[in-house]
Amino acid sequence: MLKCLETRNFPLSELKLLASKRSAGKTMRFRGKDGPVAELTAESFAGVDIALFSAGGSVSREFAPAVKAAGAVMVDNSSAFRMDADVPLVVPEINPGEAKKHKGIIANPNCSTIIAAVPLWPLHRKHRIVRLIASTYQAASGAGWAAMEELKQATRAALDGKPFQQEIIPHPYAFNLFSHNSKVDLATLYNEEETKLMKETRKIFGDTELRISATCVRVPVLRAHSEALTIEFERPVSPEEVTAILSDAPGVKIVDDPARNYFPMPLDASEQDDVLVGRIRTDVSDPSGRTIAMFVAGDQLLKGAALNAVQIAELLV
Amino acid sequence: MLKCLETRNFPLSELKLLASKRSAGKTMRFRGKDGPVAELTAESFAGVDIALFSAGGSVSREFAPAVKAAGAVMVDNSSAFRMDADVPLVVPEINPGEAKKHKGIIANPNCSTIIAAVPLWPLHRKHRIVRLIASTYQAASGAGWAAMEELKQATRAALDGKPFQQEIIPHPYAFNLFSHNSKVDLATLYNEEETKLMKETRKIFGDTELRISATCVRVPVLRAHSEALTIEFERPVSPEEVTAILSDAPGVKIVDDPARNYFPMPLDASEQDDVLVGRIRTDVSDPSGRTIAMFVAGDQLLKGAALNAVQIAELLV
Repeated sequence: MLKCLETRNFPLSELKLLASKRSAGKTMRFRGKDGPVAELTAESFAGVDIALFSAGGSVSREFAPAVKAAGAVMVDNSSAFRMDADVPLVVPEINPGEAKKHKGIIANPNCSTIIAAVPLWPLHRKHRIVRLIASTYQAASGAGWAAMEELKQATRAALDGKPFQQEIIPHPYAFNLFSHNSKVDLATLYNEEETKLMKETRKIFGDTELRISATCVRVPVLRAHSEALTIEFERPVSPEEVTAILSDAPGVKIVDDPARNYFPMPLDASEQDDVLVGRIRTDVSDPSGRTIAMFVAGDQLLKGAALNAVQIAELLV
Repeated sequence: MLKCLETRNFPLSELKLLASKRSAGKTMRFRGKDGPVAELTAESFAGVDIALFSAGGSVSREFAPAVKAAGAVMVDNSSAFRMDADVPLVVPEINPGEAKKHKGIIANPNCSTIIAAVPLWPLHRKHRIVRLIASTYQAASGAGWAAMEELKQATRAALDGKPFQQEIIPHPYAFNLFSHNSKVDLATLYNEEETKLMKETRKIFGDTELRISATCVRVPVLRAHSEALTIEFERPVSPEEVTAILSDAPGVKIVDDPARNYFPMPLDASEQDDVLVGRIRTDVSDPSGRTIAMFVAGDQLLKGAALNAVQIAELLV
């Protein structure tokens, strides 16, 4: 987040760094100066205009009243308020106008949701998507910095033929993959990550009719999520038209070179603001010509989290 | 293959080990004895009943006439003859009767095709699948032993922060994934691996109407392929019924524990004969109730290759 604020030259007169008691007293570098990290308390928000939260749902819930009471606006990366009717869920390339309707909180969507939504929106606007099937290939970064470190350590142990006890990720992670480690709803049999992608996309698009099914899988990639998307439109749409629409779309970069077999890869998407899109083709299993298949990759930490939050803050300035 | 012949106690009186000139003179252990590897020539097949081929399409094409002339049957793991009209393409759990129709060659299907086909067949038989959408998560083993070694070396170099020049796999592979590295058809925009899955499944099932779309992706897993399958049936089918059918299906093991978040993983599928199936649920994006989503993992080297070939040989005995 600090890097995004720096890179985008965010107009701020003062930056307050707030964290739990455990981290208070540390310093963090911003614009060439070391700033002290203070303990987050209900009194932290006096004089604050925008409070960027990225400490999990319970912290967001605990401090939302204090943020509002101080007249600040919370931009919240957690899932705490995303589906609340009076909380806008904003992707600036898609629904920037929603940000203005806030009542003290603006929610930042789930990372795999944002990465799919950015390229889907301009297609939806032009040709209306009626159904989406998403299979994700999600990186360790989605489970936090500690999970990324654990993937590295588990992998080194596997290469050395040594045992390794994982503590963050509940399944063996070295050279392995597994269904996303969020709770599975025993009624629908979809997990929380999938449910977020399904519900949040409908809310961001303002389209309750859009039918979505997702399969979310964690793969042994460090950073950047990939997704195989099957997109059914209201009417036939050609791959050429999809490419033309996405070539002009904000936040999207076409990486689609069948002759060289070069398509979106998480390594290429890492540390990039844009969502990479490729493998754009007509789904041959739908003879009506209304279905397009494509593959996307986006930086989970940037557009999937910090960058989108800072872009929301920019809408407030 | 030797391990499969041993484990399954394949009834053979003599085993000839054949390879290229480069490997001739080596020995390989089988049933506790070291056997010499001889150079493969057109004269190798005198007195041979079954010739298991796994050396690539060009070798299979070159020696098929010699195998036939000697009165032997070729069981071919390459893609050389799979789509030939007079060559049976056999998965013993699905179409064992086809094996008997051979004219000297029986083809062993593509690995990701077999792994999806084994659990799909009993469902197709009972409720007829009309459409399949597959997103794969394929292991390094599909590109051979050298690719598995390269993944390990590239990953160690990445962990050590050292540069590494890949020679087998054309994209960075450490903590990365990429669209399957087979040639992309510039007309359909599907790659060869996807086209195999689509065409071979229809041939194995004997159903030219079955509509299939696949997205094949190589992930940094050493062994065992996984696939997210979206299966549209002719009529509504419940997850309970799918589970009941697959519980009795040969070559399938249900691993579907939503409460513990435990589902098929390539590490669990490795060195297992069965294809693991889980995440069986109704696809909520199809309100007709005719679509089921599920996730499978199967050993690419066993059921996806050697085991299936040995099972075909068993049909010939």
